[in-house]
Amino acid sequence: MKLIIAVVQRQDAGDLIEALTAAGHRVTRISSEGGFLREGNVTLLIAAEDYQVDPILKIVREHCYTRTRYVSPLPPVAESGEFYPPTPVEVQVGGATVFVLRAADVRRLTPSEPR
Amino acid sequence: MKLIIAVVQRQDAGDLIEALTAAGHRVTRISSEGGFLREGNVTLLIAAEDYQVDPILKIVREHCYTRTRYVSPLPPVAESGEFYPPTPVEVQVGGATVFVLRAADVRRLTPSEPR
Amino acid sequence: MKLIIAVVQRQDAGDLIEALTAAGHRVTRISSEGGFLREGNVTLLIAAEDYQVDPILKIVREHCYTRTRYVSPLPPVAESGEFYPPTPVEVQVGGATVFVLRAADVRRLTPSEPR
Ligand code: NI
Ligand code: NI
Ligand code: NI
Repeated sequence: MKLIIAVVQRQDAGDLIEALTAAGHRVTRISSEGGFLREGNVTLLIAAEDYQVDPILKIVREHCYTRTRYVSPLPPVAESGEFYPPTPVEVQVGGATVFVLRAADVRRLTPSEPR
Repeated sequence: MKLIIAVVQRQDAGDLIEALTAAGHRVTRISSEGGFLREGNVTLLIAAEDYQVDPILKIVREHCYTRTRYVSPLPPVAESGEFYPPTPVEVQVGGATVFVLRAADVRRLTPSEPR
Repeated sequence: MKLIIAVVQRQDAGDLIEALTAAGHRVTRISSEGGFLREGNVTLLIAAEDYQVDPILKIVREHCYTRTRYVSPLPPVAESGEFYPPTPVEVQVGGATVFVLRAADVRRLTPSEPR
C-alpha cells in the first residue's frame, strides 16, 4: 500500500479530485500554501494499492498545469536615492509535487454500531 | 517509530483527540475535506512508537462511527422535459481511514534558549 | 528521497519558511493545531534529498523555540462548596516535532502545455 501526497495548484484541484473520484479513488483535500509566490495550493492525500500508483500519477499529470506569472520585484533604490522602475520577472508556477510513501498499513475502520 | 495519519469525521474528532491526549499521545489536527459527500473531516497526525500503534488504532476505532446519510441526487430530466422527483439515496459515511507510515526518524526539537 | 513533516509553533513559522526558502528548499505550509494548549501551529511539508535532511533539521532547530506559558486550571470546588483560587501552572510549549519519512518516490510533475 502507498500513501500519495500531492501538492497541486488550487485552480487545478477541483478537476483533479473529480477525475480521481471518478476513477474510484478516495481523496482527502487539505488547504495549504507554498511555492515562490506563497500562493494558496491544495495538498491531497490518496490511498493507493501499488498497482494504482502509476494510473493515479497519470491522472495528476493530466490535470495539473504549469503557468507563467509576471512578478514585479520591489524597486531597488539607486545610490542617488532615485527609484528604478522594477522589471517584471517571469516565474513558472504550478505543476504538482508528488510524494509516494510506503505505508506499513492502511486501514479503513468502519464500526457501524450507533454511538 | 511510526507516523499515524488518521482521517476522521469532524463530529468524531473532538472526543477522539481527548481520548488520545488522555492516553499520553501528542496529536496534531488539520482541517480537511473529502469523501463522497465532500464533507468537512479532520486529518490527525500522531507520533507513535511501534508498540503504541495497536492501542492507538483501538482508540480510533472506539471513537469513529459510520453513519447513514440520505442524499437527494439532482433530479434527472425526462425526455419529455418533465422532472422526476429524485429518490433519496442511502450513503454510508464516516469511520476512519488510517495510514501507518514508517518514520526513518522522529525528533522532538526543543531548544529552550529565549529568542 | 525523504519527506520531512515538521510541526512548529505559528510564531516561528514565518522566519523558518524564509530561512528554508533562502536555502533553496520548497516548503508547503498547512495550518494546524495541537499540543496541550490546543494552540494554532503550522505543519510544513519539505522534500529533501537524503544529504539535505541534517541541514534542514539544523535550520528548523535554529528557528523554533520553546516558550513558557502560565495556564490557570479551572478552579477546583472544595467540599464546603467554596472555590479555591486556581494556581497558574507553568507549561512548556513550542519547539518542533519533526517526522522524516522515506519516500518511495518524489516527482515534480510540470507539464507546460497550456490547458
Ligand atoms: Ni479531467
Ligand atoms: Ni471516549
Ligand atoms: Ni533566520
